[in-house]
Amino acid sequence: MMRVGVILSGCGYLDGSELHEAVLTLLALDRQDATVSCFAPDVAQSAVVDHVTGKATKEKRNVLVEAARIARGKIADVKTADATKLDALVLPGGFGAAKNLSDFAAAGAKAKLHPEVLRIVREMHAAKKPIGAWCIAPSVLALALGKDAPTLTIGNDAGTAKALEALGAKHLECAVHQICVDEEQRIVTTPAYMYDARIGQVATGVERGVKAVLALARRGVPTAV
Amino acid sequence: MMRVGVILSGCGYLDGSELHEAVLTLLALDRQDATVSCFAPDVAQSAVVDHVTGKATKEKRNVLVEAARIARGKIADVKTADATKLDALVLPGGFGAAKNLSDFAAAGAKAKLHPEVLRIVREMHAAKKPIGAWCIAPSVLALALGKDAPTLTIGNDAGTAKALEALGAKHLECAVHQICVDEEQRIVTTPAYMYDARIGQVATGVERGVKAVLALARRGVPTAV
Repeated sequence: MMRVGVILSGCGYLDGSELHEAVLTLLALDRQDATVSCFAPDVAQSAVVDHVTGKATKEKRNVLVEAARIARGKIADVKTADATKLDALVLPGGFGAAKNLSDFAAAGAKAKLHPEVLRIVREMHAAKKPIGAWCIAPSVLALALGKDAPTLTIGNDAGTAKALEALGAKHLECAVHQICVDEEQRIVTTPAYMYDARIGQVATGVERGVKAVLALARRGVPTAV
Repeated sequence: MMRVGVILSGCGYLDGSELHEAVLTLLALDRQDATVSCFAPDVAQSAVVDHVTGKATKEKRNVLVEAARIARGKIADVKTADATKLDALVLPGGFGAAKNLSDFAAAGAKAKLHPEVLRIVREMHAAKKPIGAWCIAPSVLALALGKDAPTLTIGNDAGTAKALEALGAKHLECAVHQICVDEEQRIVTTPAYMYDARIGQVATGVERGVKAVLALARRGVPTAV
């Protein structure tokens, strides 16, 4: 049974994890019989956004505590994520990936990653374990691994693609139902809600992404599926 | 194309809508080509619960504003829900259905429903339009329609089943992957996270529930599917 870490960044696409992408990831992993461990940084959200008005409020919320809503309480601080106990890692999107896991939304190619997110991504990559990232979350991989020139997709947004390439990544344009698989770097990405998409289209990309991540994790490992 | 209203009750299973059930409902409706309109009451949450500790906090949050996280901002006050513009209604579960749509979690069979939730449920039912309810949300239907003796399921929790029967409903025990279809009353229910279930099991029940609701809505209506 494959053990997969899922890194969340809050709860809501404007200030945390994109809920649909996160839940569809948990569904796809469960349907592939993976064992899931959810993680998030135990830090204040960079912002709290009213999802009716789209405007920032003065509230304070914690990334781990809000992400626990998606994980139904089964979640741990990302500092406890152990690459030796995981076969793969997945990062759903939402602005939280670019506001709480890093400050990519504000600083672009000059952004800094949360140190424990940087650590687990680099440890998984060094161990040749696959990593999936949806929507804007490939920015986390570019910030952590840009020097290794991974090929990624964030759909077709030229400005974001340019920022990823400034970090050393290569950008491949993809449609919402498509996935980008960098077999050498063991990285799988899909655009998800980088497009103004229907949930069913996003689910198709996420399901394909999850299957590709697990296929890479199983490579060379005798597995009953 | 079927027009389906989805009534949400916040964002998080301990104080609002159960996120997985809500997202899986939106996915199943989209895959059946339904047009979805999300609604929630514009009222304060009865509680805000930390989903790591499971304990209530002193925060104040609004049901509609938090539910907008699930709906990606596309949501309206339930007072604007118009039965003449909907073919079916679905209520996902989570404690919000029994804490914000009503006070069933505290008051049981003596609970009172939010007046606009009561209105839209009764209008849909009077117009013979189907209603689906998952998890604890069948309590909303028992509170609104108990005098019509609908058959419902909330799984196998004896205390909750007894409270529903005190309201006039009939309870049918079901497993997590099963649905209960009351064809006469046009009501579909499934236990979802009333059980300590895997997300894939919940998805099976929700998908079957959504298909049954849409089948009831299409009955007698020429439809291309």
